Amino acid sequence: MLHRVKLTTGQHAQMIDITAQVQDAVRQEGVTEGMVLVYCPHTTAGITVNENADPDVVHDILMRLNELYPWKHPGYNHGEGNSAAHLKASTIGISQLVPVADGRLLLGTWQGIYFCEFDGPRQRSFYVKVQKD
Amino acid sequence: MLHRVKLTTGQHAQMIDITAQVQDAVRQEGVTEGMVLVYCPHTTAGITVNENADPDVVHDILMRLNELYPWKHPGYNHGEGNSAAHLKASTIGISQLVPVADGRLLLGTWQGIYFCEFDGPRQRSFYVKVQKD
Amino acid sequence: MLHRVKLTTGQHAQMIDITAQVQDAVRQEGVTEGMVLVYCPHTTAGITVNENADPDVVHDILMRLNELYPWKHPGYNHGEGNSAAHLKASTIGISQLVPVADGRLLLGTWQGIYFCEFDGPRQRSFYVKVQKD
Repeated sequence: MLHRVKLTTGQHAQMIDITAQVQDAVRQEGVTEGMVLVYCPHTTAGITVNENADPDVVHDILMRLNELYPWKHPGYNHGEGNSAAHLKASTIGISQLVPVADGRLLLGTWQGIYFCEFDGPRQRSFYVKVQKD
Repeated sequence: MLHRVKLTTGQHAQMIDITAQVQDAVRQEGVTEGMVLVYCPHTTAGITVNENADPDVVHDILMRLNELYPWKHPGYNHGEGNSAAHLKASTIGISQLVPVADGRLLLGTWQGIYFCEFDGPRQRSFYVKVQKD
Repeated sequence: MLHRVKLTTGQHAQMIDITAQVQDAVRQEGVTEGMVLVYCPHTTAGITVNENADPDVVHDILMRLNELYPWKHPGYNHGEGNSAAHLKASTIGISQLVPVADGRLLLGTWQGIYFCEFDGPRQRSFYVKVQKD
Protein backbone atom coordinates (compact mmCIF):
# COMPACT_ATOMS: atom_id res chain seq x y z
CA MET A 1 0.00 0.00 0.00
CA LEU A 2 3.08 2.24 0.15
CA HIS A 3 4.50 3.78 -3.02
CA ARG A 4 7.72 5.74 -3.31
CA VAL A 5 7.87 8.12 -6.24
CA LYS A 6 11.14 9.71 -7.35
CA LEU A 7 11.39 13.07 -9.02
CA THR A 8 14.08 15.50 -10.09
CA THR A 9 13.51 19.16 -9.41
CA GLY A 10 14.93 21.75 -11.78
CA GLN A 11 14.87 25.01 -9.90
CA HIS A 12 15.84 26.46 -6.55
CA ALA A 13 12.21 26.96 -5.55
CA GLN A 14 9.55 25.17 -7.52
CA MET A 15 6.10 23.62 -7.16
CA ILE A 16 5.60 20.45 -9.22
CA ASP A 17 2.10 19.09 -9.80
CA ILE A 18 2.12 15.45 -8.65
CA THR A 19 -1.66 14.88 -8.76
CA ALA A 20 -1.40 12.32 -11.59
CA GLN A 21 1.20 10.21 -9.74
CA VAL A 22 -0.91 10.20 -6.58
CA GLN A 23 -4.04 9.25 -8.55
CA ASP A 24 -2.03 6.47 -10.24
CA ALA A 25 -1.07 4.98 -6.89
CA VAL A 26 -4.72 5.00 -5.81
CA ARG A 27 -5.72 3.25 -9.04
CA GLN A 28 -2.98 0.63 -8.70
CA GLU A 29 -4.22 -0.23 -5.21
CA GLY A 30 -7.78 -0.57 -6.46
CA VAL A 31 -9.04 1.42 -3.51
CA THR A 32 -12.43 3.00 -4.14
CA GLU A 33 -13.19 4.53 -0.72
CA GLY A 34 -10.48 5.70 1.64
CA MET A 35 -7.79 8.31 2.08
CA VAL A 36 -4.33 8.86 0.66
CA LEU A 37 -1.36 10.29 2.51
CA VAL A 38 1.28 12.10 0.45
CA TYR A 39 4.41 12.39 2.58
CA CYS A 40 7.70 14.19 1.88
CA PRO A 41 10.76 12.66 3.62
CA HIS A 42 12.88 15.80 3.14
CA THR A 43 13.40 18.78 5.45
CA THR A 44 13.77 21.45 2.76
CA ALA A 45 10.74 20.51 0.67
CA GLY A 46 7.03 20.13 1.35
CA ILE A 47 3.64 19.06 0.01
CA THR A 48 0.68 21.36 -0.49
CA VAL A 49 -2.66 21.48 -2.28
CA ASN A 50 -3.47 24.60 -4.27
CA GLU A 51 -4.70 25.86 -7.64
CA ASN A 52 -3.50 24.01 -10.73
CA ALA A 53 -5.21 26.16 -13.37
CA ASP A 54 -3.23 29.41 -13.62
CA PRO A 55 0.55 28.93 -13.16
CA ASP A 56 0.75 32.51 -11.92
CA VAL A 57 -0.69 31.32 -8.61
CA VAL A 58 2.38 29.14 -8.10
CA HIS A 59 4.59 32.05 -9.09
CA ASP A 60 2.95 34.34 -6.56
CA ILE A 61 3.09 31.78 -3.76
CA LEU A 62 6.82 31.17 -4.27
CA MET A 63 7.53 34.90 -4.69
CA ARG A 64 5.90 35.93 -1.42
CA LEU A 65 7.37 32.98 0.53
CA ASN A 66 10.80 34.10 -0.71
CA GLU A 67 10.16 37.54 0.72
CA LEU A 68 8.91 36.28 4.09
CA TYR A 69 11.73 33.72 4.36
CA PRO A 70 14.71 35.44 2.74
CA TRP A 71 17.64 33.23 1.76
CA LYS A 72 20.12 35.51 3.52
CA HIS A 73 19.39 36.86 6.97
CA PRO A 74 21.83 38.18 9.59
CA GLY A 75 20.00 36.18 12.27
CA TYR A 76 20.46 32.76 10.67
CA ASN A 77 23.08 30.54 12.35
CA HIS A 78 22.76 27.32 10.32
CA GLY A 79 26.01 26.76 8.46
CA GLU A 80 24.45 25.09 5.45
CA GLY A 81 22.77 28.40 4.63
CA ASN A 82 19.36 26.97 3.71
CA SER A 83 17.33 27.90 6.79
CA ALA A 84 14.78 29.64 4.58
CA ALA A 85 14.01 26.27 2.98
CA HIS A 86 13.54 24.63 6.40
CA LEU A 87 11.21 27.46 7.40
CA LYS A 88 9.14 27.08 4.25
CA ALA A 89 8.89 23.32 4.76
CA SER A 90 7.43 23.73 8.24
CA THR A 91 5.14 26.56 7.12
CA ILE A 92 3.70 24.77 4.08
CA GLY A 93 3.82 21.35 5.71
CA ILE A 94 5.42 18.10 4.59
CA SER A 95 2.30 16.04 3.96
CA GLN A 96 -1.28 16.16 2.78
CA LEU A 97 -4.12 13.74 3.43
CA VAL A 98 -6.77 13.61 0.69
CA PRO A 99 -10.06 11.66 0.72
CA VAL A 100 -10.69 9.06 -1.98
CA ALA A 101 -14.24 8.43 -3.25
CA ASP A 102 -15.31 6.20 -6.15
CA GLY A 103 -11.66 5.46 -6.80
CA ARG A 104 -10.75 9.09 -7.35
CA LEU A 105 -9.00 11.75 -5.28
CA LEU A 106 -11.73 13.95 -3.82
CA LEU A 107 -10.01 17.17 -4.87
CA GLY A 108 -11.93 20.36 -5.51
CA THR A 109 -12.31 21.61 -9.09
CA TRP A 110 -9.20 23.77 -8.99
CA GLN A 111 -7.09 21.74 -6.58
CA GLY A 112 -3.88 19.96 -7.47
CA ILE A 113 -1.30 18.32 -5.20
CA TYR A 114 2.15 19.89 -5.34
CA PHE A 115 5.62 18.76 -4.37
CA CYS A 116 7.28 21.98 -3.19
CA GLU A 117 11.03 22.22 -3.74
CA PHE A 118 12.59 24.89 -1.55
CA ASP A 119 16.31 24.10 -2.00
CA GLY A 120 16.81 22.62 -5.45
CA PRO A 121 17.59 21.44 -7.91
CA ARG A 122 17.88 17.97 -6.35
CA GLN A 123 16.91 14.32 -6.61
CA ARG A 124 13.83 13.97 -4.42
CA SER A 125 11.15 11.46 -3.59
CA PHE A 126 7.80 11.29 -1.86
CA TYR A 127 5.64 8.54 -0.40
CA VAL A 128 2.05 7.78 -1.30
CA LYS A 129 0.21 5.65 1.22
CA VAL A 130 -3.30 4.54 0.27
CA GLN A 131 -5.62 3.70 3.14
CA LYS A 132 -8.77 1.68 2.42
CA ASP A 133 -11.89 2.35 4.48
CA MET B 1 -18.57 7.68 6.07
CA LEU B 2 -18.14 10.85 4.00
CA HIS B 3 -20.17 13.95 4.80
CA ARG B 4 -20.29 17.12 2.75
CA VAL B 5 -21.28 20.22 4.71
CA LYS B 6 -22.23 23.44 2.95
CA LEU B 7 -21.77 26.88 4.42
CA THR B 8 -22.06 30.50 3.35
CA THR B 9 -19.34 32.86 4.42
CA GLY B 10 -20.17 36.50 5.10
CA GLN B 11 -16.89 38.35 5.03
CA HIS B 12 -13.77 38.67 2.95
CA ALA B 13 -11.63 36.97 5.58
CA GLN B 14 -13.37 35.02 8.32
CA MET B 15 -12.93 32.03 10.59
CA ILE B 16 -16.13 30.07 11.22
CA ASP B 17 -16.30 27.55 14.07
CA ILE B 18 -17.41 24.22 12.55
CA THR B 19 -16.70 22.03 15.59
CA ALA B 20 -20.39 21.21 16.12
CA GLN B 21 -20.88 20.05 12.52
CA VAL B 22 -17.80 17.84 12.70
CA GLN B 23 -18.93 16.37 16.03
CA ASP B 24 -22.38 15.75 14.49
CA ALA B 25 -20.87 13.74 11.65
CA VAL B 26 -18.93 11.61 14.15
CA ARG B 27 -22.13 10.99 16.13
CA GLN B 28 -24.12 10.08 13.02
CA GLU B 29 -21.52 7.47 12.08
CA GLY B 30 -21.64 6.00 15.57
CA VAL B 31 -17.84 5.86 15.67
CA THR B 32 -16.45 5.74 19.19
CA GLU B 33 -12.72 5.30 18.52
CA GLY B 34 -11.03 6.62 15.40
CA MET B 35 -10.04 9.78 13.61
CA VAL B 36 -11.88 12.40 11.60
CA LEU B 37 -10.53 14.23 8.57
CA VAL B 38 -11.93 17.71 7.87
CA TYR B 39 -11.03 18.60 4.29
CA CYS B 40 -11.55 21.86 2.38
CA PRO B 41 -11.95 21.42 -1.41
CA HIS B 42 -11.23 25.09 -2.14
CA THR B 43 -7.93 26.83 -2.96
CA THR B 44 -8.66 30.16 -1.24
CA ALA B 45 -9.92 28.77 2.07
CA GLY B 46 -8.50 26.45 4.71
CA ILE B 47 -9.12 24.50 7.90
CA THR B 48 -7.37 25.13 11.21
CA VAL B 49 -7.70 24.32 14.89
CA ASN B 50 -7.29 27.17 17.35
CA GLU B 51 -8.85 28.88 20.36
CA ASN B 52 -12.63 29.16 20.42
CA ALA B 53 -13.00 31.07 23.71
CA ASP B 54 -11.99 34.69 23.01
CA PRO B 55 -13.03 35.92 19.52
CA ASP B 56 -10.13 38.38 19.65
CA VAL B 57 -7.79 35.47 18.91
CA VAL B 58 -9.50 35.00 15.55
CA HIS B 59 -9.32 38.75 14.94
CA ASP B 60 -5.60 38.82 15.64
CA ILE B 61 -4.87 35.78 13.47
CA LEU B 62 -6.71 37.26 10.48
CA MET B 63 -5.18 40.72 11.05
CA ARG B 64 -1.59 39.52 11.03
CA LEU B 65 -2.14 37.12 8.11
CA ASN B 66 -3.49 40.10 6.16
CA GLU B 67 -0.30 41.99 6.85
CA LEU B 68 2.00 39.11 5.91
CA TYR B 69 -0.02 38.31 2.79
CA PRO B 70 -1.22 41.71 1.55
CA TRP B 71 -4.09 41.71 -0.95
CA LYS B 72 -2.19 44.02 -3.33
CA HIS B 73 1.47 43.43 -4.08
CA PRO B 74 3.50 44.64 -7.08
CA GLY B 75 5.03 41.16 -7.39
CA TYR B 76 1.75 39.28 -7.85
CA ASN B 77 1.04 38.11 -11.42
CA HIS B 78 -2.20 36.17 -10.95
CA GLY B 79 -4.93 37.99 -12.90
CA GLU B 80 -7.73 37.07 -10.52
CA GLY B 81 -6.05 39.22 -7.87
CA ASN B 82 -6.55 36.81 -4.97
CA SER B 83 -3.03 35.42 -4.55
CA ALA B 84 -3.03 36.43 -0.90
CA ALA B 85 -5.90 34.01 -0.33
CA HIS B 86 -4.01 31.18 -2.06
CA LEU B 87 -0.98 31.93 0.11
CA LYS B 88 -3.02 31.85 3.29
CA ALA B 89 -4.64 28.55 2.28
CA SER B 90 -1.25 26.85 1.86
CA THR B 91 0.11 28.45 5.04
CA ILE B 92 -2.81 27.50 7.28
CA GLY B 93 -3.47 24.23 5.51
CA ILE B 94 -6.61 22.84 3.92
CA SER B 95 -7.32 19.96 6.28
CA GLN B 96 -7.12 18.81 9.87
CA LEU B 97 -7.09 15.30 11.29
CA VAL B 98 -8.50 14.99 14.81
CA PRO B 99 -8.58 11.88 17.02
CA VAL B 100 -11.93 10.54 18.24
CA ALA B 101 -12.23 8.86 21.65
CA ASP B 102 -15.40 7.68 23.41
CA GLY B 103 -17.41 9.08 20.51
CA ARG B 104 -16.09 12.60 20.94
CA LEU B 105 -13.53 14.74 19.16
CA LEU B 106 -10.37 14.64 21.26
CA LEU B 107 -9.93 18.40 21.17
CA GLY B 108 -8.10 20.28 23.91
CA THR B 109 -10.07 22.45 26.31
CA TRP B 110 -9.71 25.59 24.22
CA GLN B 111 -9.58 24.07 20.76
CA GLY B 112 -12.22 24.53 18.09
CA ILE B 113 -12.12 23.57 14.40
CA TYR B 114 -12.39 26.50 12.02
CA PHE B 115 -13.29 26.88 8.36
CA CYS B 116 -11.09 29.77 7.22
CA GLU B 117 -12.50 31.94 4.44
CA PHE B 118 -9.78 33.96 2.75
CA ASP B 119 -11.66 35.27 -0.32
CA GLY B 120 -15.32 35.65 0.59
CA PRO B 121 -18.11 36.03 0.88
CA ARG B 122 -18.91 32.83 -1.01
CA GLN B 123 -20.84 29.57 -1.02
CA ARG B 124 -18.41 26.99 0.35
CA SER B 125 -18.34 23.41 1.54
CA PHE B 126 -16.09 21.02 3.39
CA TYR B 127 -15.84 17.26 3.76
CA VAL B 128 -15.88 15.32 7.00
CA LYS B 129 -14.57 11.78 6.73
CA VAL B 130 -14.86 9.61 9.83
CA GLN B 131 -12.41 6.74 10.11
CA LYS B 132 -13.15 3.92 12.55
CA ASP B 133 -10.26 2.19 14.29
CA MET C 1 -4.14 2.64 20.44
CA LEU C 2 -4.10 6.14 21.90
CA HIS C 3 -1.16 7.35 23.99
CA ARG C 4 -0.97 10.60 25.91
CA VAL C 5 2.55 11.84 26.55
CA LYS C 6 3.26 14.61 29.03
CA LEU C 7 6.15 17.01 28.79
CA THR C 8 7.40 20.14 30.48
CA THR C 9 8.74 22.90 28.30
CA GLY C 10 11.51 25.14 29.57
CA GLN C 11 11.52 28.18 27.36
CA HIS C 12 9.14 30.71 25.89
CA ALA C 13 9.63 29.37 22.38
CA GLN C 14 11.19 25.96 21.96
CA MET C 15 11.19 22.92 19.69
CA ILE C 16 11.54 19.62 21.54
CA ASP C 17 12.42 16.44 19.63
CA ILE C 18 9.73 13.86 20.46
CA THR C 19 10.67 11.29 17.80
CA ALA C 20 11.72 8.68 20.38
CA GLN C 21 8.44 8.91 22.29
CA VAL C 22 6.45 8.54 19.08
CA GLN C 23 8.55 5.56 17.99
CA ASP C 24 8.04 4.03 21.45
CA ALA C 25 4.27 4.23 21.10
CA VAL C 26 4.46 2.50 17.71
CA ARG C 27 6.62 -0.26 19.21
CA GLN C 28 4.28 -0.72 22.19
CA GLU C 29 1.34 -1.21 19.82
CA GLY C 30 3.28 -3.76 17.79
CA VAL C 31 2.15 -2.12 14.57
CA THR C 32 4.41 -2.91 11.63
CA GLU C 33 2.53 -1.23 8.76
CA GLY C 34 0.32 1.81 9.26
CA MET C 35 0.39 5.46 10.14
CA VAL C 36 0.82 7.45 13.32
CA LEU C 37 -0.92 10.70 14.18
CA VAL C 38 0.86 13.06 16.56
CA TYR C 39 -1.69 15.56 17.83
CA CYS C 40 -1.24 18.64 20.05
CA PRO C 41 -4.30 19.54 22.16
CA HIS C 42 -3.06 23.09 22.86
CA THR C 43 -3.71 26.32 20.97
CA THR C 44 -0.33 27.96 21.57
CA ALA C 45 1.86 25.01 20.60
CA GLY C 46 2.21 22.83 17.53
CA ILE C 47 3.81 19.78 15.95
CA THR C 48 6.20 19.84 13.01
CA VAL C 49 8.72 17.63 11.26
CA ASN C 50 12.09 19.14 10.43
CA GLU C 51 15.84 18.60 10.67
CA ASN C 52 17.18 17.01 13.85
CA ALA C 53 20.89 17.10 13.01
CA ASP C 54 22.05 20.70 13.45
CA PRO C 55 20.34 22.53 16.34
CA ASP C 56 20.93 25.80 14.50
CA VAL C 57 18.05 24.89 12.20
CA VAL C 58 15.69 25.00 15.16
CA HIS C 59 17.23 28.29 16.27
CA ASP C 60 16.70 29.83 12.84
CA ILE C 61 13.11 28.60 12.54
CA LEU C 62 12.16 30.05 15.93
CA MET C 63 14.07 33.29 15.28
CA ARG C 64 12.31 34.06 12.00
CA LEU C 65 8.88 33.01 13.29
CA ASN C 66 9.41 35.48 16.14
CA GLU C 67 10.05 38.22 13.62
CA LEU C 68 7.02 37.40 11.46
CA TYR C 69 4.76 36.98 14.48
CA PRO C 70 6.03 39.58 16.97
CA TRP C 71 4.94 39.19 20.58
CA LYS C 72 3.80 42.82 20.78
CA HIS C 73 1.79 44.38 17.96
CA PRO C 74 -0.48 47.44 18.06
CA GLY C 75 -3.10 45.52 16.06
CA TYR C 76 -3.53 42.65 18.52
CA ASN C 77 -6.75 42.78 20.57
CA HIS C 78 -6.49 39.53 22.57
CA GLY C 79 -6.19 40.41 26.23
CA GLU C 80 -4.01 37.46 27.16
CA GLY C 81 -1.26 38.94 24.99
CA ASN C 82 -0.18 35.68 23.35
CA SER C 83 -1.67 36.09 19.88
CA ALA C 84 1.74 35.48 18.33
CA ALA C 85 1.69 31.98 19.80
CA HIS C 86 -1.78 31.30 18.37
CA LEU C 87 -0.58 32.51 14.97
CA LYS C 88 2.48 30.26 15.07
CA ALA C 89 0.34 27.26 16.07
CA SER C 90 -1.91 27.67 13.04
CA THR C 91 1.02 28.36 10.73
CA ILE C 92 3.12 25.38 11.80
CA GLY C 93 0.12 23.14 12.39
CA ILE C 94 -0.96 21.17 15.43
CA SER C 95 -0.50 17.64 14.11
CA GLN C 96 1.62 15.46 11.86
CA LEU C 97 0.76 12.14 10.24
CA VAL C 98 3.75 9.88 9.60
CA PRO C 99 3.78 6.53 7.77
CA VAL C 100 4.98 3.42 9.60
CA ALA C 101 6.78 0.63 7.71
CA ASP C 102 8.45 -2.47 9.17
CA GLY C 103 7.56 -1.20 12.64
CA ARG C 104 9.45 2.03 12.22
CA LEU C 105 8.50 5.64 11.54
CA LEU C 106 9.13 6.25 7.85
CA LEU C 107 11.01 9.47 8.48
CA GLY C 108 13.63 10.78 6.08
CA THR C 109 17.30 10.66 7.08
CA TRP C 110 17.30 14.11 8.63
CA GLN C 111 13.72 14.28 9.85
CA GLY C 112 12.67 14.43 13.48
CA ILE C 113 9.25 15.12 14.99
CA TYR C 114 9.09 18.25 17.14
CA PHE C 115 6.72 19.52 19.80
CA CYS C 116 6.78 23.29 19.28
CA GLU C 117 6.24 25.40 22.38
CA PHE C 118 5.22 28.94 21.49
CA ASP C 119 4.12 30.26 24.89
CA GLY C 120 6.12 28.49 27.55
CA PRO C 121 7.37 27.35 29.84
CA ARG C 122 4.37 25.15 30.62
CA GLN C 123 3.14 21.67 31.39
CA ARG C 124 2.07 20.24 28.04
CA SER C 125 0.98 16.98 26.49
CA PHE C 126 0.44 15.43 23.09
CA TYR C 127 -1.43 12.42 21.74
CA VAL C 128 0.04 9.62 19.68
CA LYS C 129 -2.51 7.55 17.82
CA VAL C 130 -1.22 4.50 15.96
CA GLN C 131 -3.31 3.29 13.05
CA LYS C 132 -2.75 -0.23 11.74
CA ASP C 133 -3.21 -0.89 8.00
